[in-house]
Amino acid sequence: MEVAVIGVGQTPFGTFPKRSLKSLFFEAFQEALKDVEKGLDPKEIEEAWIGTLSTGGGQLGNQAALLCESVGLAGISAHHVENACASGGFAFRNALLAIRSGKCRMAMAAGIEKMTDLPRERNRLWLGVSGDVEWERLAGTNFPGIYAMLARRHMYEHGTLKEWITAVAVKNHSNAVHNPKAQFRFTIDLERAMKAPILADPLTVFDACGITDGAAVAILCRADEARRYTEKPVLVLGSGAATDYLAIHDRKDLTGLLAARKAARQAYREAGIGPKEVQVAEVHDCFTIAEIMAYEDLGFCEDGQGGLLVRDGLTKLDGPIPVNPSGGLKAKGHPIGATGIGQICEIVHQLRGDVEEPIRQVKGARIGLTHNVGGSGGTAVVHIFRGPE
Amino acid sequence: MEVAVIGVGQTPFGTFPKRSLKSLFFEAFQEALKDVEKGLDPKEIEEAWIGTLSTGGGQLGNQAALLCESVGLAGISAHHVENACASGGFAFRNALLAIRSGKCRMAMAAGIEKMTDLPRERNRLWLGVSGDVEWERLAGTNFPGIYAMLARRHMYEHGTLKEWITAVAVKNHSNAVHNPKAQFRFTIDLERAMKAPILADPLTVFDACGITDGAAVAILCRADEARRYTEKPVLVLGSGAATDYLAIHDRKDLTGLLAARKAARQAYREAGIGPKEVQVAEVHDCFTIAEIMAYEDLGFCEDGQGGLLVRDGLTKLDGPIPVNPSGGLKAKGHPIGATGIGQICEIVHQLRGDVEEPIRQVKGARIGLTHNVGGSGGTAVVHIFRGPE
Repeated sequence: MEVAVIGVGQTPFGTFPKRSLKSLFFEAFQEALKDVEKGLDPKEIEEAWIGTLSTGGGQLGNQAALLCESVGLAGISAHHVENACASGGFAFRNALLAIRSGKCRMAMAAGIEKMTDLPRERNRLWLGVSGDVEWERLAGTNFPGIYAMLARRHMYEHGTLKEWITAVAVKNHSNAVHNPKAQFRFTIDLERAMKAPILADPLTVFDACGITDGAAVAILCRADEARRYTEKPVLVLGSGAATDYLAIHDRKDLTGLLAARKAARQAYREAGIGPKEVQVAEVHDCFTIAEIMAYEDLGFCEDGQGGLLVRDGLTKLDGPIPVNPSGGLKAKGHPIGATGIGQICEIVHQLRGDVEEPIRQVKGARIGLTHNVGGSGGTAVVHIFRGPE
Repeated sequence: MEVAVIGVGQTPFGTFPKRSLKSLFFEAFQEALKDVEKGLDPKEIEEAWIGTLSTGGGQLGNQAALLCESVGLAGISAHHVENACASGGFAFRNALLAIRSGKCRMAMAAGIEKMTDLPRERNRLWLGVSGDVEWERLAGTNFPGIYAMLARRHMYEHGTLKEWITAVAVKNHSNAVHNPKAQFRFTIDLERAMKAPILADPLTVFDACGITDGAAVAILCRADEARRYTEKPVLVLGSGAATDYLAIHDRKDLTGLLAARKAARQAYREAGIGPKEVQVAEVHDCFTIAEIMAYEDLGFCEDGQGGLLVRDGLTKLDGPIPVNPSGGLKAKGHPIGATGIGQICEIVHQLRGDVEEPIRQVKGARIGLTHNVGGSGGTAVVHIFRGPE
C-alpha cells in the first residue's frame, strides 16, 4: 500500500514562553488542514502519532490524547511516541506503517515541544538526557561535549578543518534568512563564528542549535485516495529506522552515526533509489559536525569527505544537492519532538514547488529526504519522498 | 497479514527498589526468548516498541534504544511509546501494525516501569499525571478521587452496591494467590476491605492497585511463519484503540469509559466475534470500579449490570467468563508501562493452556481479550486473541 502526504503545517519555530502546548499544536494542525488543497474534514483522520520528548504543559502522561482533544479529535486512537530528538520522525514512521497495514486510511503524524517553560533543572538536562547516563552524563559530559569529541575525531581521521565544520552554520543561517518560520533569521560571519565563545572545543556557540518551541503536523493517507484531497500528493517512497549504542565509547566508529547509516540504507532500498537521486534534503544538524557526518551517512559523498561538500558549497541552496534549505536545526530551530515533522513539512513544500519564499525553493526537485537523529545517534530515522508529477 | 504471538515473558511484579530498569528488562526478555518453543535467535527481531511512562533510570529520552541495547539488540529500530497506563497495550498495537504492513517479519512489544526509585515528587504525581491537569489535578483531585466519582455515579445511576465493587478486589486477590508473579499473593476479606481506611470515598485502600516495578515482553511474527518457532502460536484476531476527553466533566457518561467502548467495538469487528465468544479476559482494574465498568464497556453484560456479574461470581476463575485470572492490576500489580504487555502474557498462557499453576488455568479457553486503559480513560486499547488448535 503506497502512502502519500496530503497536507503539512508548522508553527514558527522560536521561543514562545507565553504560549501553551495546546495553542502551538492548534496552530500547526489548522495550517495542515488548510494545506490540504481540496479540503479535509478532520473527522476523516482516524489515528494519530505525536512525537514529543518533554512532559511539558504540566502533563506527564497521555499527551497524545490531550493534544488530539485540543484540536477536536477526541476519540480517535492516538499514540505518544518518544525517541528523543527523533520523536517526530518515528511518529511519522508509525503513521506510515499503520496506513500500509490497512488499519487506517488517514492518519496524522505530529511533533511538538515546549522548551522554554520547563523547570530550570529539566532544561539543563536537555544537554544530555538522551545520550548515555551511566558513562557519559554522570561523568560530566553532555551533548556539546559528545559532538565535540565526534568533531575532533573527524578532524583527526579525515583532516576536516574547523572552518568547514562551522561553514555549515554559515550556510544554514543564510538559508534561514529566507524562511519566515525560522528561529534565527540572520546571517552569520564565518570569522566571527570561529572566534565565538567555546561551548566544547572545537565547537563554539555558533556550532550548536538553540532552545526552541514549536509544533508541526503532517497528514498522511493511502496514495490511491490522495487525489481526492490534493492534486499534489507527495509519495513516501521509503522509510528506514535503526538504533545504536547510546554511549559513544561502545561504537566502533566515531566519525559517523551507524544508526543513521542503517536507516538510510533501508530507506534507499525500499525507495529503490540511491543517494545520487536525492535532490533536496533536510538533515539533523543539531551541531554543525552532525551535518557533515550526515552527508557521509546518507551517501552524499565518500566517508571522510563531508567537510569538502560544504567547503565547496555543494550543499548550498543553489548547489547540486541543497541540504537544509529551511535553515536546519541550527537556524530554523530545534523544538525536539517537532523537528522531524518540521523537516517533512519543508520537504513536502520543496517537492510541491510551493515554498513560500521563492528564493528558498530548490528548483525542480522531485526526490527529497529527511534525516532525524535521536540523542547522539542512539536512534535515527530516514524518509524518502517523491513530489507530484 | 495475520500476526501471531510466539513467545512471552514477564518478571514478577512487585517492589524491587534495588533492581535497575535494565535488569528487569533483561529478565523479561530472556523469559520471552525461552518461551519460544522451538527457539529463536534474537537477531531475527527486527523492530521493537516499548511502553513506559516514567523516565526512570535517570534517562529522559531514547529509552527504547537503551533497553534494546541492554539485551543485545543494539541496532534494530526501536520506538518508545507512551500512553500513560495503556503504554504497553499501545506498544503492542504498533508492533502488530508494523508486521501487518509487511515492514517487518518479527517484532518485540514490551513494557516496563520502575516506580519505586523515582524522586518522591514524581511518585506523588502518579496519582494524577495522566488525567486532566487544568481542571482536575490543579483543583486538587487525583485518580483515586476521579474513580471515586465514577463509582459514586455508578452506584447512583445503577444501584450498584459498594460491596459488589469491593468484591472485585476479593476475587482478584484470590486469583493472585495462585500466581507466582503477582505482587499481592494473599486473600482479603470483604468485610475487612469494606472497613479499610478510605482513600477517596467510597473507595478504600483495598479498592486500589499499588506501586509496582516490573517488565514484560511479547514477541510477534507473521502468522504464516509462526509454526517455525512454535506449535502453539496465539493469533491476534483484532485490535482496537481510542481516546476520550481527559477531564471527566467533558464526558457525557460517567458510568463507563467511552474510549474503551470504542476500542472494544473496533476489536470485535476486526476479530469478527462478539463479547459472548470471549472465554477469558484481562481487564484494567486500576480501581475495583474500573473492572465493573470494563464488564459493561466490553459488552460482557448490559450497561449498569456490571456489579451483578461480580455479585453472582460470574467472573471468578470457575465462572462462565473468568476475568483477571492473573490477579489483575489490583493484586498482580500495576507497573504502568508493563501492565498492558503483562495482560497479554497472561492471556497467551491461558490460551495455550500452559499456565504455570493449574488451578489458575481457565479450562479450554480459546478466545481471550485484553483491555488496557490510560489514565482515567483518556486512552484505551483492546486486543483479542485466539489460541492454537
